[in-house]
Amino acid sequence: MAETNSNKIRAAILGASGYVGAELVRLLSRHSNVEIVVLTAERRAGQPLAAVYPHLGDLGLPDLLKIDQVEWGGLDVDVVFCALPHGTTQPVVAGLLHATHHSVVDELVAETTEDVIAALPKSVKVVDLSADFRLRDVDVYRQWYGHAHQAADLQKTAVYGLTEFSRDAIAKASLIACPGCYPTTTLLPLVPLLEKALILPYDIIVDAKSGVSGAGRSEKEANLYAEVAEGMHAYGLGGHRHAPEIDQELSVAANEPVTVSFTPHLAPMSRGILATTYVKLADGATAQDLHRALVDRFEDESFIRVLEDGAVPATRHVRGSNFCQMNVFPDRVSGRAILVSATDNLIKGASGQAIQNMNVAFGFAETTGLEAGPLFP
Amino acid sequence: MAETNSNKIRAAILGASGYVGAELVRLLSRHSNVEIVVLTAERRAGQPLAAVYPHLGDLGLPDLLKIDQVEWGGLDVDVVFCALPHGTTQPVVAGLLHATHHSVVDELVAETTEDVIAALPKSVKVVDLSADFRLRDVDVYRQWYGHAHQAADLQKTAVYGLTEFSRDAIAKASLIACPGCYPTTTLLPLVPLLEKALILPYDIIVDAKSGVSGAGRSEKEANLYAEVAEGMHAYGLGGHRHAPEIDQELSVAANEPVTVSFTPHLAPMSRGILATTYVKLADGATAQDLHRALVDRFEDESFIRVLEDGAVPATRHVRGSNFCQMNVFPDRVSGRAILVSATDNLIKGASGQAIQNMNVAFGFAETTGLEAGPLFP
Amino acid sequence: MAETNSNKIRAAILGASGYVGAELVRLLSRHSNVEIVVLTAERRAGQPLAAVYPHLGDLGLPDLLKIDQVEWGGLDVDVVFCALPHGTTQPVVAGLLHATHHSVVDELVAETTEDVIAALPKSVKVVDLSADFRLRDVDVYRQWYGHAHQAADLQKTAVYGLTEFSRDAIAKASLIACPGCYPTTTLLPLVPLLEKALILPYDIIVDAKSGVSGAGRSEKEANLYAEVAEGMHAYGLGGHRHAPEIDQELSVAANEPVTVSFTPHLAPMSRGILATTYVKLADGATAQDLHRALVDRFEDESFIRVLEDGAVPATRHVRGSNFCQMNVFPDRVSGRAILVSATDNLIKGASGQAIQNMNVAFGFAETTGLEAGPLFP
Amino acid sequence: MAETNSNKIRAAILGASGYVGAELVRLLSRHSNVEIVVLTAERRAGQPLAAVYPHLGDLGLPDLLKIDQVEWGGLDVDVVFCALPHGTTQPVVAGLLHATHHSVVDELVAETTEDVIAALPKSVKVVDLSADFRLRDVDVYRQWYGHAHQAADLQKTAVYGLTEFSRDAIAKASLIACPGCYPTTTLLPLVPLLEKALILPYDIIVDAKSGVSGAGRSEKEANLYAEVAEGMHAYGLGGHRHAPEIDQELSVAANEPVTVSFTPHLAPMSRGILATTYVKLADGATAQDLHRALVDRFEDESFIRVLEDGAVPATRHVRGSNFCQMNVFPDRVSGRAILVSATDNLIKGASGQAIQNMNVAFGFAETTGLEAGPLFP
Repeated sequence: MAETNSNKIRAAILGASGYVGAELVRLLSRHSNVEIVVLTAERRAGQPLAAVYPHLGDLGLPDLLKIDQVEWGGLDVDVVFCALPHGTTQPVVAGLLHATHHSVVDELVAETTEDVIAALPKSVKVVDLSADFRLRDVDVYRQWYGHAHQAADLQKTAVYGLTEFSRDAIAKASLIACPGCYPTTTLLPLVPLLEKALILPYDIIVDAKSGVSGAGRSEKEANLYAEVAEGMHAYGLGGHRHAPEIDQELSVAANEPVTVSFTPHLAPMSRGILATTYVKLADGATAQDLHRALVDRFEDESFIRVLEDGAVPATRHVRGSNFCQMNVFPDRVSGRAILVSATDNLIKGASGQAIQNMNVAFGFAETTGLEAGPLFP
Repeated sequence: MAETNSNKIRAAILGASGYVGAELVRLLSRHSNVEIVVLTAERRAGQPLAAVYPHLGDLGLPDLLKIDQVEWGGLDVDVVFCALPHGTTQPVVAGLLHATHHSVVDELVAETTEDVIAALPKSVKVVDLSADFRLRDVDVYRQWYGHAHQAADLQKTAVYGLTEFSRDAIAKASLIACPGCYPTTTLLPLVPLLEKALILPYDIIVDAKSGVSGAGRSEKEANLYAEVAEGMHAYGLGGHRHAPEIDQELSVAANEPVTVSFTPHLAPMSRGILATTYVKLADGATAQDLHRALVDRFEDESFIRVLEDGAVPATRHVRGSNFCQMNVFPDRVSGRAILVSATDNLIKGASGQAIQNMNVAFGFAETTGLEAGPLFP
Repeated sequence: MAETNSNKIRAAILGASGYVGAELVRLLSRHSNVEIVVLTAERRAGQPLAAVYPHLGDLGLPDLLKIDQVEWGGLDVDVVFCALPHGTTQPVVAGLLHATHHSVVDELVAETTEDVIAALPKSVKVVDLSADFRLRDVDVYRQWYGHAHQAADLQKTAVYGLTEFSRDAIAKASLIACPGCYPTTTLLPLVPLLEKALILPYDIIVDAKSGVSGAGRSEKEANLYAEVAEGMHAYGLGGHRHAPEIDQELSVAANEPVTVSFTPHLAPMSRGILATTYVKLADGATAQDLHRALVDRFEDESFIRVLEDGAVPATRHVRGSNFCQMNVFPDRVSGRAILVSATDNLIKGASGQAIQNMNVAFGFAETTGLEAGPLFP
Repeated sequence: MAETNSNKIRAAILGASGYVGAELVRLLSRHSNVEIVVLTAERRAGQPLAAVYPHLGDLGLPDLLKIDQVEWGGLDVDVVFCALPHGTTQPVVAGLLHATHHSVVDELVAETTEDVIAALPKSVKVVDLSADFRLRDVDVYRQWYGHAHQAADLQKTAVYGLTEFSRDAIAKASLIACPGCYPTTTLLPLVPLLEKALILPYDIIVDAKSGVSGAGRSEKEANLYAEVAEGMHAYGLGGHRHAPEIDQELSVAANEPVTVSFTPHLAPMSRGILATTYVKLADGATAQDLHRALVDRFEDESFIRVLEDGAVPATRHVRGSNFCQMNVFPDRVSGRAILVSATDNLIKGASGQAIQNMNVAFGFAETTGLEAGPLFP
């Protein structure tokens, strides 16, 4: 289905063997403005994608390569999606953004990259789905990820790609750092409410529930079917890496430092994130005010569905789509409200939002390639 | 998204509150040649579809009606999809095909309809997803469904819509009886092999496994989550209603009477049918011959994927798509082979095949509206 | 297996066709001190239990009766377990406690029962698993359940049966009101911490996740497999009936009115409750102090497992058992801690705790009949 | 709970970190005649069992050892359960049965063991749950397992422990080879019917469906939750290692060589095996005759439940128990019948049957430690 077409932009997907990479392939292979020209997967290099993902057969795609097998020179790549493990993306992106200008493929895996990046190239755009460029403060990055940032200068140019809030910057960016799945789901309802000062910027508690695909396709005992099915547990208690990312964006919205209490849980499902967020109302504000503010903020958005009064967001009603459902409920405890938001972690929380960002960056209609409705049941 | 468009055909969906109806809405609402103008649901009449299926909100669709509330007169309907319970469709379809010519809405639920149908109307096409018109022999129908067929004359005009095998007839039909989910999955590999006499027409054993959505959205104890999850069982042992339907088509293919042993099982999953079919090889034939015959037969088909040697079909690799995966394996018992085929029961086994048939009937490209790839994980 | 044995107490189970009733049968039929002599189920009366629950066949149990078919006179029942729907138990229990003294079976379903109960009988004990006698304040009951309490005098005699906190009262009680599944799971860690004033009595937020069996075996669309599987949602937002029950007990523990924010969620699993509770530390207290307090409080308890530092409770690790796992974690937000507790909602949250209470009430070893360890995977 | 008790036999469990090992621990730790004195797990040696299986905490068990760390000398072990990976058990068992006589611990992992085994020791009994001693013909073993049998002499002494058919031999055996989960489930209904010549010994087709725990706790991509949930597929097509094991026992029962067509499937559930077996009736025999034969054969068995006419076996109705449910159904194809049998693969298909065999071998009541009923839902 993906034929050569000179009117299409040419895309590379690095890390195509993970679930996020597979979703990028599924969605981009049917995107009317995109042609996939490179797929990489370090451990599966040399294989056709269908050997890794049988559901992605018959799409006419190139076989998998190792990153350093890619001969960027003649490919005329317009956009690179990086769906690589956290911590490995910084040198790759640094190399990429340099290499495409100077054909210095060797730099791709350079261990120190800061000095080779003189100016950001304009001709290629990088849409990164890892955590490597999400945190603006590289000290915070080091604190949470345990090593120094390897492309600190480049970090300064990265745009945090929560699409609905950063279109202008995304349109101009060379490097778009797509938000994590938890931050996406959590921030979408919180940011407008903090911006409008309808809720207090402290005592914000986020209790999030995620499907297993958020942990990737890695072969860990904890992710085995028999370990996950028919049970629930919390994890990352008091210290999940998505917390500082949420703090960062909430602090901008509130215009003062915000520290959230954030606790993720693993639910026995493949896809979906549900965030239940407990907030305190600003003086005089009601849950109804919050609802109205969200309706106003998002009424022109294609992918944000603020539900009608009383309707409850559910991950099953966004599964397979780029939608985020949300709603606000008054708490029985006076002065409190409860926000509930739901996304498909692999789509709006990853590949879908990445494509949405690409659409903005290249001037395509924002919904292109993301038209599919939720798949239920 | 569904705007008035005079270039589109106008579709009615009867029984939109079931899972099959919901899938018809999901797919047709994004079909470039179709506008949905009527949705019915007897018990939910008066409500917006989003009240029944929150994932189908914001599509700009008409509210739900009762069938007898539909004023067919001014609607200019081109195609009617009937996703009604088995046994209730015959009078409705008889009424429809008559009423649209003669504006006799009263006839719609007429108890005896045979005499009111003089000639089949040409202006509207009915795509029926119930079992009501699948069995050509109305005596067989009575035997398996427990009551006399209520539109025996109309039955004679019905085309059994296993698309890949009946395109010419479908193109000309007014009434297309879409195959059941089990028959679709079972027949696709079996028919070509019987036609080519590569397998014996007896001792065919079909062991099928289905997800729960095949039982519809009805509120039965047996379909509760806690009853279904984490367990398996067989049902309809020795007498499932899809058996005579399979027999009928296999007998045509084999050109002699075939009686299959067919045993369905309920698997703890929402979607998907896997059919494992045990066959005896014709004298001199090998499993490899069977594989080659299937490859030859289906290589030009858009939705049939005969896998490479050794690759195993899986329901998860067709979920959410109109694809059928299949393959052939040699049995360790000499002279035997094993066929495995997989579909999404709600799509290729119901709504997708119905739309595929509509595409054929109206001359659209057969894949229109069915482009979505499988959703995995 | 359940033979007549004059050394055993004789038990009736009212409402044996629900999941809680079935678990009572499963556990009591193997309890060395109990003989089951009556099983009721209004809609399935006349059938053997195995027709309703095939896994409970071959136990030598009496067939199902309607409650008013039970001839209490000659049965010499010692204990009655009521696993009836909320709101229907009050007249039954009132009748029971009266009828066993006066042989007035007619009173069993009397609509007004207050005047027939002069003194509580001593010879029979009622272990109620419904919500009908949990709320001490009948006005609160009316507010949350929408009708006047039908046995207000009897309510005064009911003991709230959170076993670990009420053994003395349970030992003497005629009517034990077993806590709900959510309250059990939530209260176990919270009560000791409030009693010791280690946490603040306000801003307590309980985010609970439950398996579907908590909704019973009723044939509701919302509980169908295809509706529940692979998704999550919150429900009862801002007003679940277990909230006032939690408030009631926390207020006793804190010795001042407590109002919790309580939000339950439906998780795609049959059994299990996970409660994640966000609390504020009392001045000077640390998460470690909380952990030590829980260890101290529960170290002699057979069914409460305060996990080691850092270990995370999981519903799968208590499934099929009467255990409650719990732990305390410091929050990254200063001054906060997170409690996590897990139970099997049908056992420690219902039938198991009921039997534990019966053991206390009749002077049996508390673990009798509840020795089974968790079933994993 | 497991206290030192000189009246109990002393058990070692080799391979306690797998699912089968964990089930052995769960069941034996509550067995009134057994004390667990050794637990081994190569990769987790040095850890408490609760670190590997949190649900098995607080049982007072010894920490995990490597096999060669066990000092068998002073342990007075009476029974050794081997739950080791296939192919690794032969030298261990050979060493064991030798070492306990001669205190030659070094032999335990000897690569050639045939010559060190002079006579079978009587003082220790080995209950092996691997496939290493199931196949009587070591040539067949080599053919299916790809290497020469490493303890061929010992193989001759092994008893195939399908309890219901081999009690006398089990009582006298030093080495009991417990049947695989598929063979157990398949053989139980087939053996009596072949013995009585009620079915034909050819054209037997076994379509089996298993939960994921049958694949063990190994960290394979194919067993990840997101790979398994909500889907089904066949595997081992035409060549699963359990086929020759089934053949072997059926051939004995039929008194002539039998070759089954056996196809396993992976179902999205943790536990349970359902076998649907398609058979041809012997001349004159009816499905009813088969049912009666099974009832007669098994009516005194504690763990075999031949269901009433028409009732359908289900894995969920045996889950967590040592029961096997079975029934017979007439096929619609004349001369055919369908057998359906269900077990919990980890219990009757592994640990439960092993304990049942141990009970027989040591003269305990056969149901000891296996009294738990099925856990549903």
